[in-house]
Amino acid sequence: MAGITRRDASFQPELRKNIVTREWVIIAKGRSGRPSDLARGSEPQARLPAVDPNCPFCPGNEAQTPPEVFALRDGGLRNSPGWSVRVVPNKFAALRPGGSDVLRSEGIYSARDGFGAHEVIIESPDHHKDLWEMDTAHVEGVIEAYRQRYLAFEVAESLRHVLIFRNHGAKAGTSLIHPHTQLIAGPVLPHQVQLELSGAADYFEYLGKCVFCAIIDHEVRGDERIVLQSDHFVVITAYAGRYPFETWILPKRHSIRFADMSEEEASEFASVLKETLRRLALCLGLPSYNYAIHSAPAAEYNVRAYHWHMEIYPRITTLGGFELGSDIYINVTAPEDAAEYLRQAAPV
Amino acid sequence: MAGITRRDASFQPELRKNIVTREWVIIAKGRSGRPSDLARGSEPQARLPAVDPNCPFCPGNEAQTPPEVFALRDGGLRNSPGWSVRVVPNKFAALRPGGSDVLRSEGIYSARDGFGAHEVIIESPDHHKDLWEMDTAHVEGVIEAYRQRYLAFEVAESLRHVLIFRNHGAKAGTSLIHPHTQLIAGPVLPHQVQLELSGAADYFEYLGKCVFCAIIDHEVRGDERIVLQSDHFVVITAYAGRYPFETWILPKRHSIRFADMSEEEASEFASVLKETLRRLALCLGLPSYNYAIHSAPAAEYNVRAYHWHMEIYPRITTLGGFELGSDIYINVTAPEDAAEYLRQAAPV
Repeated sequence: MAGITRRDASFQPELRKNIVTREWVIIAKGRSGRPSDLARGSEPQARLPAVDPNCPFCPGNEAQTPPEVFALRDGGLRNSPGWSVRVVPNKFAALRPGGSDVLRSEGIYSARDGFGAHEVIIESPDHHKDLWEMDTAHVEGVIEAYRQRYLAFEVAESLRHVLIFRNHGAKAGTSLIHPHTQLIAGPVLPHQVQLELSGAADYFEYLGKCVFCAIIDHEVRGDERIVLQSDHFVVITAYAGRYPFETWILPKRHSIRFADMSEEEASEFASVLKETLRRLALCLGLPSYNYAIHSAPAAEYNVRAYHWHMEIYPRITTLGGFELGSDIYINVTAPEDAAEYLRQAAPV
Repeated sequence: MAGITRRDASFQPELRKNIVTREWVIIAKGRSGRPSDLARGSEPQARLPAVDPNCPFCPGNEAQTPPEVFALRDGGLRNSPGWSVRVVPNKFAALRPGGSDVLRSEGIYSARDGFGAHEVIIESPDHHKDLWEMDTAHVEGVIEAYRQRYLAFEVAESLRHVLIFRNHGAKAGTSLIHPHTQLIAGPVLPHQVQLELSGAADYFEYLGKCVFCAIIDHEVRGDERIVLQSDHFVVITAYAGRYPFETWILPKRHSIRFADMSEEEASEFASVLKETLRRLALCLGLPSYNYAIHSAPAAEYNVRAYHWHMEIYPRITTLGGFELGSDIYINVTAPEDAAEYLRQAAPV
């Protein structure tokens, strides 16, 4: 049963194209084990001490990860304690350097090597804190790490897209409890991003305006889906959100790329993100959640009509066969009601 | 906090259009309770007796559901015991009759009433049996119920799509353990179906052939993703499957609509479905799973290049922020390895 070994980190993943829908899928079988491992399922881990000797992301265990590619440090040498934020390649990468950038035929099908990068942004030396529990200054450091790593890949010629995303909690697909974000940069444009880009381009074509700017104007005037506002950002529940309490953070200034934030904006973004996650934690009882930063896909695209933003997806319901079989989502909480709950969440 | 009442069955759901991606979402807030209810999560129910007095789908409890719209019976009156398969409207419907079929503006956004139908096909009087554990003759009855209800909605003028789908197990989004399938018929064409239709039409245009027929030819010749074959059906793991062990059942005969099956084909489909589910249960240790029948969307479409099939999605991994944020799925099991496991699963 070659190739189904447990967590085989040497396996080169593959991108495959769905011949019918033309959507890409990553086949990364080295990331799991045998079917019997899959069948075990993933249990949430118990609460552990602030530093866990078995956690590869805890200080003192730097040798358990690939060498760091970026760190914010108060002291210490590379790959030793002293960091406050640390970025390393993912040991069990979904995409990885090497391989070819050429599309190949497999009979009637198309595939290409799973070429790209998959990094882990370790957000804190503390094993347990969720992002909203950290000091604002610390969250600013995390955002700075996002920007630096985004910039590192945005200009790569052979990579067409960079996604920064976070999995928090067992229901959100996290495998390690230590707080971290991930970055995947790959050679194909994701379908969801394609839809957003073409939708935004069409809206601009017909109405002469950025669709996200139109959303911000409309929501700020209407107020019913506003969660909070700051000078530079607005937080709303999405009008047609797929998930209950789906929440978007948008910069008020029309801005195509995530990394274009000024220092002042980046610092405010850190506070706004922290406060938004705090309210979701309060309202929903520490839910599992994911977030993803949608930004202009990469340097090669000449995009005018895009507007970067963060989408937060609380994972409090389970997707069923209707969602998986049709791509129409059933959202059981009206976004207006969700916004009202989140507005009422007590300030710190 | 009006409208967030617990399981408010009288609420009229709404379809909303994502202004950016132009995808539809159903807002059906009556289907859940307050955020505190959502936060509780859903626990798998304990194993209960063959008839559960508290289960609305068990014989003797027919009054707990809306009146039946179809049943296969050995005896008994409507809405009383004696049925082997029973179909009722879903009490907490995601779409329901009534409301208007007209698109309306909500400021910059578009919405329409959540007009349609949502039915439950109760597969057996037995509270516990999964489909693969039932007699083949009984599964034939279930398939007959699928066909009858599909036909009932396929021709409705105001409905553009019918999806038959099944949720099995807590990780697949099921809320009631009693074996059942669901049918949702709605006024919009789901994005996933749109992609399949346009992909199939383009393939036909360029290559003069149905893309699903091409897949069947290729897979039968190649053999590495074949799970099993019968006279009229072939079962494969999908070349670019999104989920580990994603399995498709395809009719060998080019056939656009699910309901076009001959009696002989329908009977064989029942056996093939039962055997496929049995092998997945054996290989993956009784996994949660969903399936959905993809068929020509409704009578109004003049479709030549489509080919109905069933897609089965085992739910043995958890989707994370990369999947939710990009629509690119990471599949941790090579489809060829999955097919090998499923081929080796011992015959009955």
